[in-house]
Amino acid sequence: MRTQTDPDTAALEDLDRDECLKLVATMSVGRIAVADDGDGPLVVPVNYVMDDDVVVFRTGAGSKLHAMRGNKPVSFQVDLIDPFHHTGWSVLIRGLAYGAFEHDVAHLDLSTWAPGDKHHWIRVLPTSMTGRRIGLNDGPWNAAAYL
Amino acid sequence: MRTQTDPDTAALEDLDRDECLKLVATMSVGRIAVADDGDGPLVVPVNYVMDDDVVVFRTGAGSKLHAMRGNKPVSFQVDLIDPFHHTGWSVLIRGLAYGAFEHDVAHLDLSTWAPGDKHHWIRVLPTSMTGRRIGLNDGPWNAAAYL
Repeated sequence: MRTQTDPDTAALEDLDRDECLKLVATMSVGRIAVADDGDGPLVVPVNYVMDDDVVVFRTGAGSKLHAMRGNKPVSFQVDLIDPFHHTGWSVLIRGLAYGAFEHDVAHLDLSTWAPGDKHHWIRVLPTSMTGRRIGLNDGPWNAAAYL
Repeated sequence: MRTQTDPDTAALEDLDRDECLKLVATMSVGRIAVADDGDGPLVVPVNYVMDDDVVVFRTGAGSKLHAMRGNKPVSFQVDLIDPFHHTGWSVLIRGLAYGAFEHDVAHLDLSTWAPGDKHHWIRVLPTSMTGRRIGLNDGPWNAAAYL
């Protein structure tokens, strides 16, 4: 039986790019973060799909997310946390956001959840991809077991 | 029976400060985001407790999170998303992070999950608190029903 992690012995493991991509592909909601001058970063959940290593989501023309296209570095974060066992993983993709052309995204199946016009597709081209997993002290823990 | 939201009729509801606080108090893991000059924001999950409207978490002396104390505006984001029903809520607390004195946090019960020394307690004093809920089109949706 699994027990809660003991912080003295729990394993904190860095994830390589392949593992990050594999984990991110298993989820459907992540968080986009963009620096908002003066305030703390804007962080909002978005539903997304992966196109190889590119994060794709949709947004409305008037939104803050729309305004970030091409301007600023953004971060896309995904995690899966088990609050009972104190285990989980988190992946942070940093990159630049661009508005997508129709032919870039025509092959993708991505519906929107939130109301409002979300005609604009955004692609986040990764410049770095890092991740960590907090495992249990009884051996390697496989996040995929939760999916 | 609940069905997936239709983006044309789903309700997007702004949450007031009281609702935000109530929702944040029901969770134990959120994400700290801090601008990292040049790159996209650093976004990492932390386990936390609330002390009234102050977010409290622990971190190690050498971490990037530790370095942010008193320097920069930070954001703390919590959400609960139901990827099947396409419903959920997200709260964004913006504020300033400070190292906490012992007497500030002695009454709080906050263990750490991840390995390593995490002797430093950080308090995020909110300057703004905003949230949104994506509900279903058959009436108000209560996130607490999932807890």
